[in-house]
Amino acid sequence: MPVLDYKIPDWLNSVHHDGSQQYVSTAVPHLHEPVTLRLRVGHGAPLRQVYLRTFPDGEQALARMTRSQATRASDWWEITLPVNQPYFHYRFVLEAEDGVWFYTAVGPTAHIPLDHTDFCLLADYAAPGWLDTAVFYQIFPDRFYNADPTTDPKPEEYEFGSYRPRTYPWGAPPPPDQLFPFVFYGGDLPGITAKLGYLHDLGVNALYLNPVFTAHSNHKYDVADYDHVDPHFGGDEALVALRQALDAYHMRYILDVVPNHCGYWHPWFQAARADINAPEAEFFTFTHHPDGYASWLGVWLLPKLNYRSKELRRRMYGGETAVFRRWLQPPFSADGWRVDVANMLGRQGETQIGWEITQDIRRAVKETRPDAYLIGENFFDASASLQGDQWDGVMNYAGLASPLLAWLRGYQQGAHGLDGQIKAPLPWPTAALAATWQQALASIPWQIALQQFNVINSHDTPRLRTELQGNDALHRLAAIVQFTYPGIPCLYYGDEIGLMDVPGLASRGCMVWDEASWDGDLLDFYRELIRLRRESVVLQKGGFQILAVEADLLAYQREGANGRFLIIAQRSQTPRPAGPMPLVHSGIANGTQLREVFTGKTAEVVDGRLILDTLPQGATLWQSGQI
Amino acid sequence: MPVLDYKIPDWLNSVHHDGSQQYVSTAVPHLHEPVTLRLRVGHGAPLRQVYLRTFPDGEQALARMTRSQATRASDWWEITLPVNQPYFHYRFVLEAEDGVWFYTAVGPTAHIPLDHTDFCLLADYAAPGWLDTAVFYQIFPDRFYNADPTTDPKPEEYEFGSYRPRTYPWGAPPPPDQLFPFVFYGGDLPGITAKLGYLHDLGVNALYLNPVFTAHSNHKYDVADYDHVDPHFGGDEALVALRQALDAYHMRYILDVVPNHCGYWHPWFQAARADINAPEAEFFTFTHHPDGYASWLGVWLLPKLNYRSKELRRRMYGGETAVFRRWLQPPFSADGWRVDVANMLGRQGETQIGWEITQDIRRAVKETRPDAYLIGENFFDASASLQGDQWDGVMNYAGLASPLLAWLRGYQQGAHGLDGQIKAPLPWPTAALAATWQQALASIPWQIALQQFNVINSHDTPRLRTELQGNDALHRLAAIVQFTYPGIPCLYYGDEIGLMDVPGLASRGCMVWDEASWDGDLLDFYRELIRLRRESVVLQKGGFQILAVEADLLAYQREGANGRFLIIAQRSQTPRPAGPMPLVHSGIANGTQLREVFTGKTAEVVDGRLILDTLPQGATLWQSGQI
Repeated sequence: MPVLDYKIPDWLNSVHHDGSQQYVSTAVPHLHEPVTLRLRVGHGAPLRQVYLRTFPDGEQALARMTRSQATRASDWWEITLPVNQPYFHYRFVLEAEDGVWFYTAVGPTAHIPLDHTDFCLLADYAAPGWLDTAVFYQIFPDRFYNADPTTDPKPEEYEFGSYRPRTYPWGAPPPPDQLFPFVFYGGDLPGITAKLGYLHDLGVNALYLNPVFTAHSNHKYDVADYDHVDPHFGGDEALVALRQALDAYHMRYILDVVPNHCGYWHPWFQAARADINAPEAEFFTFTHHPDGYASWLGVWLLPKLNYRSKELRRRMYGGETAVFRRWLQPPFSADGWRVDVANMLGRQGETQIGWEITQDIRRAVKETRPDAYLIGENFFDASASLQGDQWDGVMNYAGLASPLLAWLRGYQQGAHGLDGQIKAPLPWPTAALAATWQQALASIPWQIALQQFNVINSHDTPRLRTELQGNDALHRLAAIVQFTYPGIPCLYYGDEIGLMDVPGLASRGCMVWDEASWDGDLLDFYRELIRLRRESVVLQKGGFQILAVEADLLAYQREGANGRFLIIAQRSQTPRPAGPMPLVHSGIANGTQLREVFTGKTAEVVDGRLILDTLPQGATLWQSGQI
Repeated sequence: MPVLDYKIPDWLNSVHHDGSQQYVSTAVPHLHEPVTLRLRVGHGAPLRQVYLRTFPDGEQALARMTRSQATRASDWWEITLPVNQPYFHYRFVLEAEDGVWFYTAVGPTAHIPLDHTDFCLLADYAAPGWLDTAVFYQIFPDRFYNADPTTDPKPEEYEFGSYRPRTYPWGAPPPPDQLFPFVFYGGDLPGITAKLGYLHDLGVNALYLNPVFTAHSNHKYDVADYDHVDPHFGGDEALVALRQALDAYHMRYILDVVPNHCGYWHPWFQAARADINAPEAEFFTFTHHPDGYASWLGVWLLPKLNYRSKELRRRMYGGETAVFRRWLQPPFSADGWRVDVANMLGRQGETQIGWEITQDIRRAVKETRPDAYLIGENFFDASASLQGDQWDGVMNYAGLASPLLAWLRGYQQGAHGLDGQIKAPLPWPTAALAATWQQALASIPWQIALQQFNVINSHDTPRLRTELQGNDALHRLAAIVQFTYPGIPCLYYGDEIGLMDVPGLASRGCMVWDEASWDGDLLDFYRELIRLRRESVVLQKGGFQILAVEADLLAYQREGANGRFLIIAQRSQTPRPAGPMPLVHSGIANGTQLREVFTGKTAEVVDGRLILDTLPQGATLWQSGQI
């Protein structure tokens, strides 16, 4: 049986609530503080009464809401009541002429929903305040800019099997016989420091750096020393210098750390291999000492860390100078962490303590720096770890980027150990994208949704522009979505100039510094998006509502108290013919004037509809009122 | 936006999997043990490939399934792989001519589902083996049978305000001026012992007793002594005698305990009131000693127990002779616990440790008696506490009885503190019932679903027969559902003879022992249901699939390896006209003969359809093959 094999009456699509200011009076209430919750409903909805259902200490409570006001496009219901528990979840029950309906964060239903689809407000939740206006820029250091060639890795430094590290001329194709982790281009932290002016001009104000701690490979996920910056990147001093330079630009940065495993050459693992009685032996899981041991997905180079060890916990996050603490402190003063392989942390067959380790890490990090931003890598449904007590956010593949890509390119899915890929033979339905987004948003509190790390590219995925075969319109569509979706946008270096994957280096090609070869128009486009995102409270914190789902079109709005953005994404190469788009359920009043951000075109809402010109492939971004 | 605003192609309704033997080779596998998982699909499904998606240690794994065989009605896909973690959740990904589809326990979707809808198999999960064949019978002791009038409560024993306990003649209406908790009829444990022959003849083989520990009221939820049986019920010796008598009939019993609060007169609370420094003071939450304190929903008679107290934990479940342990041991040897107000346990505003207390209680109970049955009272979505580490089951109001009643009578919902009720003006849609059931089943592992305590009546709800204004056909419909739905059925005393609510006593009227006044036909009907449930492996453990949803009809099957039951429930007073019911997605082969259990009528599946005679209001129960 399908989940919902019934039709929802149309008027129910006009019912809306989310965690934004229009609907929740206090973004971060204290426990027991009264908040006002509001519900927007289209005129003429056959409602007899609306009830708010809360769940104080596990027992259902129902309270009558009041029809508070009618605006030009909507009726509003509201209620004021205290936030009675730290995890305050609630739903609306609509008693109407045509039945009783439930309205939760996934939408209206006739069936009785499960609690996890309820709206949720966290009491006394401390979000890093600086995130609101943050736009991130991710840098893979070896490939960004080489400011100090004296620190370039050289073949004589070490050997790995028959391979030795080599530094190639910037932008040169890697030789086919070199092992990819030992292909270097010499990018370093002084290189990043040198380019801060460029980044500041672009408008971003926070960096996410791929790992910088000492390791053999170019990606440095095979950590050999959690306590020092790799000398090839300039060592600890270079990070201190970068921090100081960032301060001058009022910029933030977060580091990338791998608590799930370390590198084979890490002294802990070498000590454990050498002596089964070494204190570090318990950090690992030997099935057959010294050569049989648990590792990340069976990669021998990356021995898995075993968090049943209390000493390991102490060194990683518990102790005063533990890894997770010290880099947040002066002189490095990182503004947070991106945690690699967060999804597998503390999980090994019968041992499934990932949630506990993550809670501990959160405590250590927030104790050290209350405003630190703590995000995890997770390609999948991370909702269990996004309820306020574990990660602030995750790399938002599952909630945003992966379904978006599936919509633009067709659904494809591979996995470790699977030969080949699952591929959808037909365009992936727009309704599937809408439902995937909606359910992902609904699975976490609104306050947490605003903290998701919205990437469309990263070092771990092919660049979207490559996936889309260089299609500029679809690339811009994806960027507009990325910058207008709830959460924190993060560019991947080169996105702004149209960088694509490079053979042999995948998405980790060298940044191009020859301005003549840049796509200047794309760069201007990104500058405008970044500026908007940093300046617009509506994009930062406005409500989110999907308004239209057509075969090849998805429209949604970000809604503020006195203004809004309307995003219309059209994926088909065949233009959508001119015609109306119904907005009757959006709460947008007739006569509202909209202006398209990039073209300056204007449009007006008439009879609950927006009359659209022909829509070519791509997205348009409409603003109205105070944004 | 509605959750799913797209149509699922019809062939997808033929895809089926659940946790039963046909689909999962090993009901309770050990960790790392290989299991074979199977998927049934209708002939002609446009499938290219089916993948199984598992999630070892947090990382997605995809594996190709094999088209293993074609039976007369279905194609089967299968895969064998080890259960790689204790909580082994999985889904199917269907690569088809018309797209990629996901199939989880809530059904097929085009959108990417969240993990909590995955199927789930618990490794090394120990279920109480005796549950399989158990049929329970709930008794409210004061109202079942008075075997020993010498122990009847008398007015001179105690006073409560201006009220004193009084014992009334069996079946006499209660006087309007008596406070309902002090209306006694003298039912006692010797009374239950005396009627075991009746219960054995009825066929039930397990009892659930409402509280028997010493307390002032007739319901005894205001516990005054967790360590003794109320003398009015015959004291400890009467329980020992009942245990011995049950043994002779090979019957089980479970007790009812209230760990959430105790009675005002409990010595712990009296000690705490008398002295803020008493060891018991920390068992409670005084806002203003001695008269201001936390209580159950503000009822001063029931002070809330505070589980931040380690000593309280010790006395309730931690210590050797703790409440939860001692009654499971000889000479009382209860077979389990029903825990009152389980939903609110350990939850008080900022303190939300219910999950932890419940885990602790489970550990104590299972340590004491590994085959004990541990269920909680919960009227709402209890899925978070039904994942294998907390309750074995709950009183299954939310998952079964409440939506069933809403379907039969119309949706109605009240709540503590709400004046009046929410009422649906129209019949509640059959699809809403189907979706509520399906989502509730999907929210817990199959192994746990089989342990839910399926009540349609209890001491806490009006009797269904009363709610349905004595409608015998609908009462029997509900009983057939109760006995054929996954989980453990439990009668409420008198259900079998058509007992209805009694003015002033609600659903707690006196059992009627005048056989002449019994509805003998109903009794025979129940006897047959009980016999079937105890003898049929298919009803105990067979698969579950909803097959048809019409305006007033719901049909589902319980599926075994070589036989099945088909349940067709029709709620309307207007008979359903004779006509076909499509079974093309059921895996039932053409030519299959079905026999209706109660009438002996037969029917045959022809062209994927069952030709039904006119269906009057009520349910029919069809069996086929080895059941």
